[in-house]
Amino acid sequence: RANQTRLAETLHESCQFGAAHPYGSDTTETGMARLSLDDSDKAVRDWFIKSAESLGCKISVDEMGNIFAVRPGKNNDAPPIMMGSHLDTQPTGGRYDGILGVLGGLEVLKVLNENSYETEGPVGVVDWTNEEGARFPKMAVSSGVWAEQVPLEDAWNLKEVTANHDSPKTMKEELTRIGYLGKNPASYRSNPFAAHFELHIEQGPILEDQGQKIGVVEGVQAFKWFEITVKGRDSHAGTTPLYARKDAVLSAARMVAAANPIAKRLGGLTTTGIFETKPGTVNTMAHTVVFTLDIRHMKNETLSQMEEECRAEFQRIAHEDSEKGCEVDWKLLVDSPAVEFNPDCIRVVEQSATDVCSALPQTHPDGKLWRRMISGAGHDSCYTNTRCPTSMIFTPTKDGISHNPVEYCSAEDCALGASVLLGAVLRYDKL
Amino acid sequence: RANQTRLAETLHESCQFGAAHPYGSDTTETGMARLSLDDSDKAVRDWFIKSAESLGCKISVDEMGNIFAVRPGKNNDAPPIMMGSHLDTQPTGGRYDGILGVLGGLEVLKVLNENSYETEGPVGVVDWTNEEGARFPKMAVSSGVWAEQVPLEDAWNLKEVTANHDSPKTMKEELTRIGYLGKNPASYRSNPFAAHFELHIEQGPILEDQGQKIGVVEGVQAFKWFEITVKGRDSHAGTTPLYARKDAVLSAARMVAAANPIAKRLGGLTTTGIFETKPGTVNTMAHTVVFTLDIRHMKNETLSQMEEECRAEFQRIAHEDSEKGCEVDWKLLVDSPAVEFNPDCIRVVEQSATDVCSALPQTHPDGKLWRRMISGAGHDSCYTNTRCPTSMIFTPTKDGISHNPVEYCSAEDCALGASVLLGAVLRYDKL
Ligand SMILES: NC(=O)NCCC(=O)O
Ligand SMILES: NC(=O)NCCC(=O)O
Repeated sequence: RANQTRLAETLHESCQFGAAHPYGSDTTETGMARLSLDDSDKAVRDWFIKSAESLGCKISVDEMGNIFAVRPGKNNDAPPIMMGSHLDTQPTGGRYDGILGVLGGLEVLKVLNENSYETEGPVGVVDWTNEEGARFPKMAVSSGVWAEQVPLEDAWNLKEVTANHDSPKTMKEELTRIGYLGKNPASYRSNPFAAHFELHIEQGPILEDQGQKIGVVEGVQAFKWFEITVKGRDSHAGTTPLYARKDAVLSAARMVAAANPIAKRLGGLTTTGIFETKPGTVNTMAHTVVFTLDIRHMKNETLSQMEEECRAEFQRIAHEDSEKGCEVDWKLLVDSPAVEFNPDCIRVVEQSATDVCSALPQTHPDGKLWRRMISGAGHDSCYTNTRCPTSMIFTPTKDGISHNPVEYCSAEDCALGASVLLGAVLRYDKL
Repeated sequence: RANQTRLAETLHESCQFGAAHPYGSDTTETGMARLSLDDSDKAVRDWFIKSAESLGCKISVDEMGNIFAVRPGKNNDAPPIMMGSHLDTQPTGGRYDGILGVLGGLEVLKVLNENSYETEGPVGVVDWTNEEGARFPKMAVSSGVWAEQVPLEDAWNLKEVTANHDSPKTMKEELTRIGYLGKNPASYRSNPFAAHFELHIEQGPILEDQGQKIGVVEGVQAFKWFEITVKGRDSHAGTTPLYARKDAVLSAARMVAAANPIAKRLGGLTTTGIFETKPGTVNTMAHTVVFTLDIRHMKNETLSQMEEECRAEFQRIAHEDSEKGCEVDWKLLVDSPAVEFNPDCIRVVEQSATDVCSALPQTHPDGKLWRRMISGAGHDSCYTNTRCPTSMIFTPTKDGISHNPVEYCSAEDCALGASVLLGAVLRYDKL
């Protein structure tokens, strides 16, 4: 079993790097702003490597800055079972999203060490770079390169969106700056895994609402990210009659408003998180608006339908409902079809969850404290799943709130999740 | 009469500082990006002072960086008649808005000099700081301080909106940096004018559509600028059900879309030029949106009605049409009631226009090549009008397009405007 106190302490120790947005007086009552490849991300990476080395791990860093810490087993010719997630956060993020998966992995290694447990093959922990897609707008881009689903150059050339709007930095520039542009190829070919297990907070309300403790994750809903550019004409706010306008802001605002009922009707989600106006002055119509659209649905087919309906409606708004007319252009940033995880991995997670939950005093009306479920959020596991057996473990999330400083998972629930991770890894190791 | 070739050459000479967004191969086929108090604004200020000194003017700079260049008359105890406008531009601005008024003023002084004409009182040219309100979001803020309608500290503390979003500079910092924080009080009390005449491009389509050459400006429509903040809750785009959202972007987009039909119905204008999302990542709902709303109407009463209807509708959207609800907060940036210029000033402009147009070969079906009109845009003259007799002269604007790099007024029309300015100033000087 994982050590609840030790895991909680280590988790909060790691969160000294990038702590932000305090919401209470206790040092743990804080959110995070540890954007990928910023100074606090460098600091927590250094801390992670020191911690893993002190546990006897061998460290390697690849050309995307992914950090692999591997504890040897009996047979070290076999590829390792990796426990992976990410240490980067949203600009207004919490202390659990991603962080729990990496710290839970370190906790598993500590339990193995203190029991002098020798695994059949090697077992390790991986910190994937820029999973959030917050600073560089492609989620899980570095596990994507490892899986050879995202070209290395595309990833390196990604430009930040959260700062330096006039001269945004690229991923490669920032990897170089913080000293994490590794030499090893970022590829599953030269760096294969036996399996990938990811412990993560649910980030939604289901486990809490159902009074359950563990989610055995069977898959991930489909989603796409788009950057949408609306071009109008800059002109004077006081002298341009309404009928003569090509108002890109008004046109784009109508598009954002129009996407929502499409999502509602089809049972999916649409979100605009970024909306930028150029040139951006009070009394000039913007010539250009760039906004993002994140669309999600459980089914690939319905996601396609949502996309098609948005495309048709945005076109109509640009051409027929924007006075003299605007132009609208779509760029795909992320395409993540619905994912089904590996049945063997799901099974060992389920067995481990059954075992860990059976020792708990609570019981559940339905007879079990865990459930199978689908993830609403994307994860590095979506990409590893294309190249090695993969599955995930979810823990409850207070009020279902994530990507927010108040994001919370109790120390007890974090430790339960780490114990399920431990049991799943050892079971898979035996296979 | 103004010298057409000389005025055109000087105008384009001054536009070498801050030229941007070329739209053709000729060096005059360019727009401008000369934001208030940036390096190019400093350069054109230095150029303006040198030019005015070479014409025998005395220069003074006040604590808002307003530059006053005065040519002595017979009686120099009398306050000067000032010809004023501005040398700053929009980020995607043109070569005429504001610039014509200052350069037209210099041209008038050149005509007086070459005719060794001695005016009764002194006559001068003023370059007002940050008229556009583009970089620092209060239009005509520095003539506002001079008129004691805007407190000096409020103006000095205004933060830029077009760059450095993380650490925006204030007007005072930038005045200091470029060396234009003058010692003289910015006040009509210590620095009174006999009158203020402003030559400006119309920025709208009326003169061109009517085949006329000169607008005798009787007043300016009413307008207000607001900064509107919508607060929701940041949460995850993939795991937060639609019904559980406090989506500030969706809420604000609905507000922008809702303002337009209110303006349409009441015969006014509404424009959103800035729309910012925080924290601004693809997969997190923004907790905060800040957008601007510029509303205009010919009548003060109808402008108030537009404002009230927008306030009620935005409140309804925030509370009843944003799922779990958002908060909306309004901040007034500029309040510019409808302006009526001084009858004596209007009369001398009209006499001068009649005189200048009578010499033109063109004729107009209605019998005159000038017309009385109301300005859609605000100007420094709105503020000077509260403290001294003021009026304005408009010239045609190609396709009515302004605040855009292709903004254009022919050399002939620029010179006609400067000739009308000359005649108006000399007539007023005689009064
Ligand atoms: N787990 C997580 O928040 N990842 C970000 C990717 C997504 O937007 O789903
Ligand atoms: N003339 C001009 O464009 N001034 C800017 C102030 C306004 O927005 O009306």
